[in-house]
Amino acid sequence: MDIKTYWQQRQQTFETALQRAIPRASLQPPTLHRAMRYSLFAGGKRLRPILCLAAAESVGGKASHAMPLACALECIHTYSLIHDDLPCMDDDDLRRGLPTAHKVFGEGIAVLAGDALLTYAFQLAAQTKPTGRYAAADYLAELANGSGHQGMIAGQVVDLEGEGRQVSPKQLKYIHAKKTAALIVSAIRLGAMSGNATDRQLAALTKFGNALGLAFQVIDDILDLTQTSAQLGKSAGKDLQARKATYPAILGMARAQAEAARLTRLAQTTIRALGPKAAPLQAIAEYLLARQH
Amino acid sequence: MDIKTYWQQRQQTFETALQRAIPRASLQPPTLHRAMRYSLFAGGKRLRPILCLAAAESVGGKASHAMPLACALECIHTYSLIHDDLPCMDDDDLRRGLPTAHKVFGEGIAVLAGDALLTYAFQLAAQTKPTGRYAAADYLAELANGSGHQGMIAGQVVDLEGEGRQVSPKQLKYIHAKKTAALIVSAIRLGAMSGNATDRQLAALTKFGNALGLAFQVIDDILDLTQTSAQLGKSAGKDLQARKATYPAILGMARAQAEAARLTRLAQTTIRALGPKAAPLQAIAEYLLARQH
Repeated sequence: MDIKTYWQQRQQTFETALQRAIPRASLQPPTLHRAMRYSLFAGGKRLRPILCLAAAESVGGKASHAMPLACALECIHTYSLIHDDLPCMDDDDLRRGLPTAHKVFGEGIAVLAGDALLTYAFQLAAQTKPTGRYAAADYLAELANGSGHQGMIAGQVVDLEGEGRQVSPKQLKYIHAKKTAALIVSAIRLGAMSGNATDRQLAALTKFGNALGLAFQVIDDILDLTQTSAQLGKSAGKDLQARKATYPAILGMARAQAEAARLTRLAQTTIRALGPKAAPLQAIAEYLLARQH
Repeated sequence: MDIKTYWQQRQQTFETALQRAIPRASLQPPTLHRAMRYSLFAGGKRLRPILCLAAAESVGGKASHAMPLACALECIHTYSLIHDDLPCMDDDDLRRGLPTAHKVFGEGIAVLAGDALLTYAFQLAAQTKPTGRYAAADYLAELANGSGHQGMIAGQVVDLEGEGRQVSPKQLKYIHAKKTAALIVSAIRLGAMSGNATDRQLAALTKFGNALGLAFQVIDDILDLTQTSAQLGKSAGKDLQARKATYPAILGMARAQAEAARLTRLAQTTIRALGPKAAPLQAIAEYLLARQH
């Protein structure tokens, strides 16, 4: 299959849905809504939404049914970037090739816009229609699990605390699993749940998400070292500068690349039983391994 | 009725439930969970939870049924205080008589602990059992409405933008209605919904919440001017210092006090039809008007 065309089509459908789902910039107070939209529509790859939609289809569900969840996931991802870029966290001026939210709107509004996106994500998720096996509460619990105190936020805390310190490979795997993989796993699980996945299907897709999420972060670490800021659309070399633990720093570049490839193959193997309906997920895994930004 | 005894009993029951509902401090990562608990268990009045429980009973529901929502409301209130106290917002060192979260744990962890409490609130709310008229999604939507981009956060944004500027009485009412009253209204509505309130009951309690929420904030403004930091457990005189618009500043002290009394009477009148079951709500309104901190 042609993954680039697939991705572009999915991205277009998603952009249209997200534009409709997110409050207009003219709503009161305008600064808040402008800030929410500024970061949401800054040219993201839409990885989590596209994984969510592809996972829905991989178990025979409809992408349209998964759409409120896909929008909710992008709201959560975007809020995490806004807060992560704050001076008291990663202190980043550039994101997706544009000045970060706090640079444009000030720190206070950036914090509040992030809070509003997080809150709005749950508002969106509550709109998902229940399927045979899963109720509204199940979607909300999954979303909160992936993004909350035992998921993404746990990873951000350990990442923040680890800056400038010696981090073991085991700790690094924990940070990656929580900070990056947890929300990717939830994206895939939420899509599958909206498609009324069986327990068996959900278990296979969860393993897929875990391996894919780790591979994605290893590749991110490699790109931070090998690409320029212009190529990445965000400040390159930040990890080294912040003395952050990364796979290339701990294992060396060659072993980090081998690990990314191994995790990608592992991911692909875990969902072989889903057959041709999972072809997009298989191709996405391959695509992410080869990406340059 | 003896409102002080009622409040103390309710508060005790709530503290026990909250202690059980919130993740232990020993969970990984410990800093995050310690920070979440530090701010949650710093001796808050528990106004929103107690209003939620009293509202449930005012329509014949059980307090125990409303408890997950009461816990969720306190998580949201606490996250909003943590973020509001940040240097980029109100820049406050003292809250409930203790150093604020960012003073103890640093700004980065304070942002993340707030995010985690907000996320956890939705996890808790998703645990509420549906009643005849209301589904899990209704609770989630109500909680997000009260706290989100058209509720509490809208008020915080306009409040932040208004600092040091001339604010009209109309704008001030907007700030108070959103920043403070919106979550108080949701607390009361959520309690009523968990008690399977009729449309008529819910409408009356919504009006009650709006008037009570505004009264509460007018009194807060008055106390900021008239009480010491020791009495308030937070930095007094902050509004004046930040050149914030307040009722006493705009209307003068006497008219602000008259307005608080008028709003309290209005609140009490709106729920007269609920009869003796609403006696606690009536007494709470009276109690808040007379409070000194």
